[in-house]
Amino acid sequence: MAYELFYWPDIQGRGEFVRLALEEAGAEYVDVARSGGLGAMMALMEGEGVERPPFAPPFLRDGDVLVGQTAAILFYLGPRLGLAPSGEEGRLWTHQIQLTIADLVAETHDTHHPISGGLYYEDQKPEAARRAKDFRRERIPRFLGWFETVLARNPAGSGYLVGAGLTYADLSLFQVVEGLTYAFPRAAKRAMRHTPRVAALHARVAERPRIRAYLDSGRRLPFSEEGIFRRYPELDG
Amino acid sequence: MAYELFYWPDIQGRGEFVRLALEEAGAEYVDVARSGGLGAMMALMEGEGVERPPFAPPFLRDGDVLVGQTAAILFYLGPRLGLAPSGEEGRLWTHQIQLTIADLVAETHDTHHPISGGLYYEDQKPEAARRAKDFRRERIPRFLGWFETVLARNPAGSGYLVGAGLTYADLSLFQVVEGLTYAFPRAAKRAMRHTPRVAALHARVAERPRIRAYLDSGRRLPFSEEGIFRRYPELDG
Repeated sequence: MAYELFYWPDIQGRGEFVRLALEEAGAEYVDVARSGGLGAMMALMEGEGVERPPFAPPFLRDGDVLVGQTAAILFYLGPRLGLAPSGEEGRLWTHQIQLTIADLVAETHDTHHPISGGLYYEDQKPEAARRAKDFRRERIPRFLGWFETVLARNPAGSGYLVGAGLTYADLSLFQVVEGLTYAFPRAAKRAMRHTPRVAALHARVAERPRIRAYLDSGRRLPFSEEGIFRRYPELDG
Repeated sequence: MAYELFYWPDIQGRGEFVRLALEEAGAEYVDVARSGGLGAMMALMEGEGVERPPFAPPFLRDGDVLVGQTAAILFYLGPRLGLAPSGEEGRLWTHQIQLTIADLVAETHDTHHPISGGLYYEDQKPEAARRAKDFRRERIPRFLGWFETVLARNPAGSGYLVGAGLTYADLSLFQVVEGLTYAFPRAAKRAMRHTPRVAALHARVAERPRIRAYLDSGRRLPFSEEGIFRRYPELDG
């Protein structure tokens, strides 16, 4: 049976980290809200009969199993899609990297919404300018530097984050680099000069046949100023 | 062999979620940085020979295994301490709840640091006032309301979040209620009027003998204006 992914239909957002894993694996899946199922998605969050309601999208349904939280979805899917190491320790390490990516994604979101996700960017521009400056100067280099270290110290020397082969964390790091490069073209380029392994991983993932086909397809939504990675030139310094 | 917990020695912070699980289980553990091992902690983060360096504290060492990210540490410890359900689905659901608690903790931190964790609160007070207002009005009720729903829909009707018995997620929700009540006494009290199950769980956890003994011991650090949950009366509205 096909996996059912539930996420907002008009943005990449956090759902994109799950889409990339499903696409790379060639898995059969339905992007429910994009297939006319926005009502079904809302019912799973707000319906009174749902025993384990997700707090927010994305979430995944696999038969009877309903899983929310991006990193938990990928932890669940990883072994099933062949995108996680075998042993517990390797899977936990991959998950730990994914959770650090999730922290970076949340911080990226808050560069344009430092006060409230319920207000428009236009209602929090001065605060966004201050937060984005710190994000560019301190946080992007710190996070990308950590990923660079992880790549450098992988004893398999594979150029991937964990072990000898591709995992979902590599796909997610690809997406983060895509997103930061869209949102902060100048700051991201500056930071990446110091993280050649991160840049190489990004280029390598982009050339994987199924990822390439996905990126070129209509299934890949464009970045936009409705998502997590937004291009507001004034925030790029 | 004793578990080794690595966390900043002077605050509850994110380390406290791990401490509560270890204490409830009566596990043997060393709080390394509080036992004079701050240098050892820094070496694990910054030493060049560490194959899987944690991005930030807390992290846990169990023999050869080194795990970072609070929720991942608890996912690892849960089954070992008897604080997680058996079966994959129950463990994943417990983890999903924990990740939502982690989101709430990060948002709480940002009420006093909406611009940068590298600046003092005093350098971001106007922004903090705006963010805290939204947090009190929108976010505390939303998160606590979700936990209330999870408690209400647990088919075991146990008063715990998952299944018939206590899990680490219950301990973490206890800590969140403690922290919100410290930091936002008025807003937390207001919100808890609508979440009687959350309030009851908090009271019940506080009466568990090992938790009670821990809270009364010198091992429990006090809340302070250095941690995540800070009492700045002007942020409580």
